[in-house]
Amino acid sequence: MNKNSSNTMALAPNTSNKRETVCIFGTGDFGRALGHKMIQSGYPVVYGSRSTQISNLIPKDAEVLGHAEAAQKAAIIIIAIQRQHYNFLTPLSEVLRGKVLVDISNNLKLNQYPESNAEHLAQLLPGSKVVKAFNTVSAWALQSGTLDASRQVFVCGDDVEAKQMVMNIVRALGLTPLDKGSLLAAQEIENYPLQLFPMWKFPIFLSLGLTAFFFLYCVVLDIIYTYIYEKKDFSFFIAITIPNRVCPVMALILLALVYLPGIFAAIIQLYRGTKYRRFPDWLDKWMLGRKQLGLIALAFASLHAVFTLVTPLRAFASWRTGKGIISQALNNKTEPLNHTNAWLSDSYLALGILGFFLFVLLGITSLPSVSNNVNWREFRFVQSKLGYLALILCTAHTLVYGGKWFLSPSAYKWYLPNIYILSLIVPCAVLVVKFVLIFPCIDKRLTQIRQGWERNPKFSK
Amino acid sequence: MNKNSSNTMALAPNTSNKRETVCIFGTGDFGRALGHKMIQSGYPVVYGSRSTQISNLIPKDAEVLGHAEAAQKAAIIIIAIQRQHYNFLTPLSEVLRGKVLVDISNNLKLNQYPESNAEHLAQLLPGSKVVKAFNTVSAWALQSGTLDASRQVFVCGDDVEAKQMVMNIVRALGLTPLDKGSLLAAQEIENYPLQLFPMWKFPIFLSLGLTAFFFLYCVVLDIIYTYIYEKKDFSFFIAITIPNRVCPVMALILLALVYLPGIFAAIIQLYRGTKYRRFPDWLDKWMLGRKQLGLIALAFASLHAVFTLVTPLRAFASWRTGKGIISQALNNKTEPLNHTNAWLSDSYLALGILGFFLFVLLGITSLPSVSNNVNWREFRFVQSKLGYLALILCTAHTLVYGGKWFLSPSAYKWYLPNIYILSLIVPCAVLVVKFVLIFPCIDKRLTQIRQGWERNPKFSK
Amino acid sequence: MNKNSSNTMALAPNTSNKRETVCIFGTGDFGRALGHKMIQSGYPVVYGSRSTQISNLIPKDAEVLGHAEAAQKAAIIIIAIQRQHYNFLTPLSEVLRGKVLVDISNNLKLNQYPESNAEHLAQLLPGSKVVKAFNTVSAWALQSGTLDASRQVFVCGDDVEAKQMVMNIVRALGLTPLDKGSLLAAQEIENYPLQLFPMWKFPIFLSLGLTAFFFLYCVVLDIIYTYIYEKKDFSFFIAITIPNRVCPVMALILLALVYLPGIFAAIIQLYRGTKYRRFPDWLDKWMLGRKQLGLIALAFASLHAVFTLVTPLRAFASWRTGKGIISQALNNKTEPLNHTNAWLSDSYLALGILGFFLFVLLGITSLPSVSNNVNWREFRFVQSKLGYLALILCTAHTLVYGGKWFLSPSAYKWYLPNIYILSLIVPCAVLVVKFVLIFPCIDKRLTQIRQGWERNPKFSK
Repeated sequence: MNKNSSNTMALAPNTSNKRETVCIFGTGDFGRALGHKMIQSGYPVVYGSRSTQISNLIPKDAEVLGHAEAAQKAAIIIIAIQRQHYNFLTPLSEVLRGKVLVDISNNLKLNQYPESNAEHLAQLLPGSKVVKAFNTVSAWALQSGTLDASRQVFVCGDDVEAKQMVMNIVRALGLTPLDKGSLLAAQEIENYPLQLFPMWKFPIFLSLGLTAFFFLYCVVLDIIYTYIYEKKDFSFFIAITIPNRVCPVMALILLALVYLPGIFAAIIQLYRGTKYRRFPDWLDKWMLGRKQLGLIALAFASLHAVFTLVTPLRAFASWRTGKGIISQALNNKTEPLNHTNAWLSDSYLALGILGFFLFVLLGITSLPSVSNNVNWREFRFVQSKLGYLALILCTAHTLVYGGKWFLSPSAYKWYLPNIYILSLIVPCAVLVVKFVLIFPCIDKRLTQIRQGWERNPKFSK
Repeated sequence: MNKNSSNTMALAPNTSNKRETVCIFGTGDFGRALGHKMIQSGYPVVYGSRSTQISNLIPKDAEVLGHAEAAQKAAIIIIAIQRQHYNFLTPLSEVLRGKVLVDISNNLKLNQYPESNAEHLAQLLPGSKVVKAFNTVSAWALQSGTLDASRQVFVCGDDVEAKQMVMNIVRALGLTPLDKGSLLAAQEIENYPLQLFPMWKFPIFLSLGLTAFFFLYCVVLDIIYTYIYEKKDFSFFIAITIPNRVCPVMALILLALVYLPGIFAAIIQLYRGTKYRRFPDWLDKWMLGRKQLGLIALAFASLHAVFTLVTPLRAFASWRTGKGIISQALNNKTEPLNHTNAWLSDSYLALGILGFFLFVLLGITSLPSVSNNVNWREFRFVQSKLGYLALILCTAHTLVYGGKWFLSPSAYKWYLPNIYILSLIVPCAVLVVKFVLIFPCIDKRLTQIRQGWERNPKFSK
Repeated sequence: MNKNSSNTMALAPNTSNKRETVCIFGTGDFGRALGHKMIQSGYPVVYGSRSTQISNLIPKDAEVLGHAEAAQKAAIIIIAIQRQHYNFLTPLSEVLRGKVLVDISNNLKLNQYPESNAEHLAQLLPGSKVVKAFNTVSAWALQSGTLDASRQVFVCGDDVEAKQMVMNIVRALGLTPLDKGSLLAAQEIENYPLQLFPMWKFPIFLSLGLTAFFFLYCVVLDIIYTYIYEKKDFSFFIAITIPNRVCPVMALILLALVYLPGIFAAIIQLYRGTKYRRFPDWLDKWMLGRKQLGLIALAFASLHAVFTLVTPLRAFASWRTGKGIISQALNNKTEPLNHTNAWLSDSYLALGILGFFLFVLLGITSLPSVSNNVNWREFRFVQSKLGYLALILCTAHTLVYGGKWFLSPSAYKWYLPNIYILSLIVPCAVLVVKFVLIFPCIDKRLTQIRQGWERNPKFSK
């Protein structure tokens, strides 16, 4: 024992030593951080170490003993050593018999070993009760007390009482235990902290790719074409005009891509006449990524909304407005209100606002705390009914806005279609097929297939 | 056993057969879906069925036996048959003695039977431990793996250990069990998946009714009146101008309706001199629907904000601006800045922005995950103090904006008051009565009544 | 027993009396409210009271007995009396032996007594099983059924079975129990309902102070200076123009203050060469308040966004636009598009939009339900990487917008720098130092220190 780090971590609320002693094997970074925190929370801590003189970083209120002596002092032993060194525990199997061993280890990559570290430990020491916990907490966060992120600690283990004891410690440290069931869940728990938005990767790369394509497409048609043929420099379009063309196009396409896999699934089921054969892998993955696609679409739609609202503040916009008014004034006449234009501009704005409103509603419903308070019927009502309504409104918004361009020859610079025409292909296809699918005769057949009990059994042979 | 569906659902992670065998009675849609999912998660599954040859849809790794033999192989039996057929289980009562029976059934309508299906099952088989679970999960979702919605599985039962066993299975299937207590909760759990936003129905119908009324009111005064008396066609007002009149009016009225029941409650308590008599039913229901009313009001307020911000983009708006500027230009003079107008326009915009800001803050606080992290004192501070501040700001916003119209005779077309005057009745009434209620003498009496111990006992006779 | 309040609270769903009897000591406000609610939920309730004739407010279906007789009728006794009167329970210790005592008391101020009320009760009656619960629920909410706020009931206690029994009652009342571990958590649970946003106090006062300062600074420079030297009355700037100067300045400074403590921490660690000494207290507190600072910054940024978007609707803005156009029209010429201006205006708008977008993303990630679904690696990616990107974008937005003023002499009215110059000091300092800290040589050293095991042990003596 030492007094070097005496003035560090003295927050201990001096709780009348009711807590049971906890033993920590290993004096590494995480072992020390956990020990500090436990002492602060009123637990007597004893470290098990090869050398009892080794370290001046161990909290001063902790005892340091040999592994065997330390283990005998506590019912719970935290194994703060790396998996490679688990073998050295086998000679201690007698001392550890009946004790609760807490495996807190993490791996360096996903599925590094065939079985999880905790299961490996349980196999080495079959007489002990292994509980997996604490691996999702960072030592740095424990140390500094700045647990901004999740305070959840996943706990799993085969022995219910052992798990309860560990969960009580977790709570005492100010964290929230989450029971994940038996030790079989350890693999998943060990993989968890290694992930970096695994569900988001494909949707984000897809969006980035499409965005880059449409951005270049617009640069070519709006800036380079204009520069070559009209000798006008509109390079500043890169900042707002072009993003505000790409964003709505991306939002509409991604929103349609959310509903496209459902269409494919329905067609496959109708064709096969059964729901009991698995969908192709790509369709499964696509369906699992719909929420992410939808949220990215919402992000693009929000950017589009703000880029549009900002228009009147642009120097270009006020210059253009001024030019129009001055030319009227110089011609000494006021043009009357064009009622068709007024109808068109108000309609596409209103359609866009309502579509965006429903879209935001869908986004709010997908917040975890909201969707947990909603049952299946309600969730499907919102995501399916309101979702299709949003898609219809957004498609109509684009049609009304871009309609005049589709027929005008100036929309086909270099024989390339306008970006708005491109953006309408997927959503229109989805809406048309969906319209066919809800025809009573087809819908009835599909409902039968999905209810499973009235299907055509020929196909499943 | 059969191999027909061999290539379907082969995701099983080949977990070293540690899981205990689970028996499923019934080979219907949900029974099969659950069996597939359990086999994928490493559970040996045995089906109990009348005919062991019946089905080629049963997962190939599952055994199919008669009911009694199947039941003997497992400690947990999932009853995937409909309530009407529960009676056939009574002859098996000896085999099922001491087993955990999981009732997964649902009804077709709310409170279909006097007692819940699970309680009915427990009465039929008093020797078994009945646990209610899985009824909130859809077979389609289990099958396709696309559990976008809630992963929560409500579990209830009188035997704690049986419940723990079922909750472990729930966790192993990648779902989140939520302990709802004893079997008495089964009725509520069975009703849950049948609901479609029960709390939202009245507020939504009320809003739709009021919206329709105000919309027609505006159409009559703004379009028909103008068309008849001024021969001007403003039919395009339907798209944006009129919605942007109806939305703020609805938002203000609904926000006031959130605070009106509290005013009524206070008056009733003051009049009765006690808090120990129940409020009338309509007031109780109204108070329970305040959150929904408030959120719908927020939706209207958001639409109003976007409709307003979009104004400069309208063809009508730029035509009107241009007309004004050109007429000045043709008259060869620049009008000086009208300071009163500048003050008025900036004030109502600022009041509206601040009111909307507080309103959004209230909305965020009502998100389940946020309100769970807030104690009573904090919740009341936000919802009551900040809520009234939002109401005051929004009322002031409307007063400053519409003030000039109230006195002008042109506001009373066909002797009907302007819509803004109508919208101010409820909020002003709420604010005036609230102002009276916070007078110290009245407030003190009310506080005494609500603290309960210093009330006037005469009335409760 | 009495029948006076017979028609009050008759919602009881007539559940077939399966529930175990619950005893309530004390007929005060909360005791009565809880009793009503329990009877509604199907629990037989017996009150223990000094006088069995005392009250006509007790629910009619409840029995009222002396304390000892009442306690004998139930396994669970709810102690609805104040801590000062706990002593009178000691004579009953024999009757209460083995019973579950539920402590529901609250204190009037934080840490009023050295030990929590529940621990005090457990010391007085060592033979009973004390469970802390229900103290976070308000009697008024129980009575009126309007549980808008949190339905969470914190439960703690040393006996697991006793805790389970209490949690079942909590669930039966329609509330959500949250196990907080052993009785040591009682202090925290008793302090919880007394708090009013403790983490928000300092950030809010800091923001209010800074806002007041910048507001006055702008009033002096923009209104008073202009009035004195240019004889122009711009007092209406108070409503929108000045708030829209103060809000972005506050947002930028507060966002920088979120990242400043991390910079300080890195410097301190580099200087000390260890992470094992505690940071100074002010830095610890600052780090714990970063989330709140960031959310307030987001609020200011949102207000700035709306104030900016509203600009074209202001009477002042349309007057200024008109003046500019008319002066061009009267001079009979149209000014060509100024490409530099178009680039500048579009750039700062685009930078601001993207910065704000990332800022909102950070805000959404800090919602409890979202951050609980995110692991440490993901949380740090969002809050650190995306956060710095937002800071860079917002700083660039301000630089591009305000850049022209920094060099112009008119920016230094009364020798005071323009508010935009002031606002850039902290963010630029943060970004410059951060840029130095990510130099490979320094970053490597810092990473070593934070991983703990490769540090320089000289310093920790």
